[in-house]
Amino acid sequence: MTQQPVRLSREDFEARLRRIGEERYHDKHPFHHRLHSGQCTPDQVRAWVINRYMYQSRIPMKDAALLSRCEDPTLRRIWRSRIEDHDGSAERPGGIERWLKLAAAVGLDRDYVASAGGVLPATRFAVESYVRFVRERSLLEAIASSLTELFAPKIHTKRIAGLLEHYDFANEDSISYFRNRLDEAPKDVAFGLTYVLDHANTAEKQEAAAAALTFKTDVLWAMLDALYSAYVEPGHIPPGAWRPGKGLRA
Amino acid sequence: MTQQPVRLSREDFEARLRRIGEERYHDKHPFHHRLHSGQCTPDQVRAWVINRYMYQSRIPMKDAALLSRCEDPTLRRIWRSRIEDHDGSAERPGGIERWLKLAAAVGLDRDYVASAGGVLPATRFAVESYVRFVRERSLLEAIASSLTELFAPKIHTKRIAGLLEHYDFANEDSISYFRNRLDEAPKDVAFGLTYVLDHANTAEKQEAAAAALTFKTDVLWAMLDALYSAYVEPGHIPPGAWRPGKGLRA
Repeated sequence: MTQQPVRLSREDFEARLRRIGEERYHDKHPFHHRLHSGQCTPDQVRAWVINRYMYQSRIPMKDAALLSRCEDPTLRRIWRSRIEDHDGSAERPGGIERWLKLAAAVGLDRDYVASAGGVLPATRFAVESYVRFVRERSLLEAIASSLTELFAPKIHTKRIAGLLEHYDFANEDSISYFRNRLDEAPKDVAFGLTYVLDHANTAEKQEAAAAALTFKTDVLWAMLDALYSAYVEPGHIPPGAWRPGKGLRA
Repeated sequence: MTQQPVRLSREDFEARLRRIGEERYHDKHPFHHRLHSGQCTPDQVRAWVINRYMYQSRIPMKDAALLSRCEDPTLRRIWRSRIEDHDGSAERPGGIERWLKLAAAVGLDRDYVASAGGVLPATRFAVESYVRFVRERSLLEAIASSLTELFAPKIHTKRIAGLLEHYDFANEDSISYFRNRLDEAPKDVAFGLTYVLDHANTAEKQEAAAAALTFKTDVLWAMLDALYSAYVEPGHIPPGAWRPGKGLRA
């Protein structure tokens, strides 16, 4: 990732950020190819739901960590909406609730999934690394690491179509998490991208922001590698991780 | 890992800790079976050397983090020897230097390995998680997490024999890292085990110590899963990770 420290124009820098997604975003991962083309077994889908829950459930903590370091009330207010989107409110269920709806639809016990028991250690490590990154790095890097949302609508659209076409559990209710993200992500990323383009005003800051986005693609990719290794091929489930048959809905 | 919070006798608690190793230590991992029985290709051995270096190189940071929280000078002095063992001194090369000797012996450029470039993201995440655990948890948990050393001599003995028997690069010089660990680890673990048995004097502390050792086995296991996934089967090398042919010795 080492490049000449030359400041790019706003347009060229945005193009560089988008290229990171083209080269490294997890829509290219073999597990997603299997999932979206109907090649996953019910247990492989369950393993994905269980492990991805760990990620979903930590996103509000990640955003709260970012919030806790923001001195600008306007920025805080804008960023707070992400926490509300995931955690929901008294009136409105959030993304985590919608994910648990998906869990139930694929035959899993929602309390088991919510307990994050059986999550692959490699998934936990990747998610922890992301939360810590946002807690410790500059605000610019923390916000830049969220820009994988630039690439999310494409994968969500593909996923919705693929799940509805290939899997019996899939219907508008069970996949509502992804529909909602299609509405939420563009609003979030529009703000995040503008912030990064505005604040990465030196070559060094552009480097740091690009590295932060690259790091985030590593996090997403590593989770799918671990999932593939444990539940597809070679199929080595690590000690303590979820095994087919466990955590099923009564 | 949830158990009845009943305080075990010193003997039963030690037996419980040893059982964690019997059930979860990475000597059981398929990658080690391949490595020690001569089934690894030269590039698979290189991938192991590159990724394991990341772990070796962070151990002194982990031990320094523990040291930085110790109020007892005696404990500090005893624990400091671990840092000296790994980082060495002006007179004496340490474990990291010996590991780089192994790297050169398997045909890798030592500067490339020392740069930790090409290390699998999942390896980085696991190692970071371990360092953070030691930085943030209780001293008892931090020390308990080091008790995988109870199980290390067995795997080092097996490894020395397996490498010498099956691989051309292996000789007393190139594998000196493991010989040295055979001398160092027993002294370290004797202290660590006594400390944990003495200080885990409630059911809750015994639980915490056992969970810390279990966590550490997760760290070691996850690194080998990532290695297997990337370089053995299915052989999906993540973006940015080392690829055969790169980082070779001139």
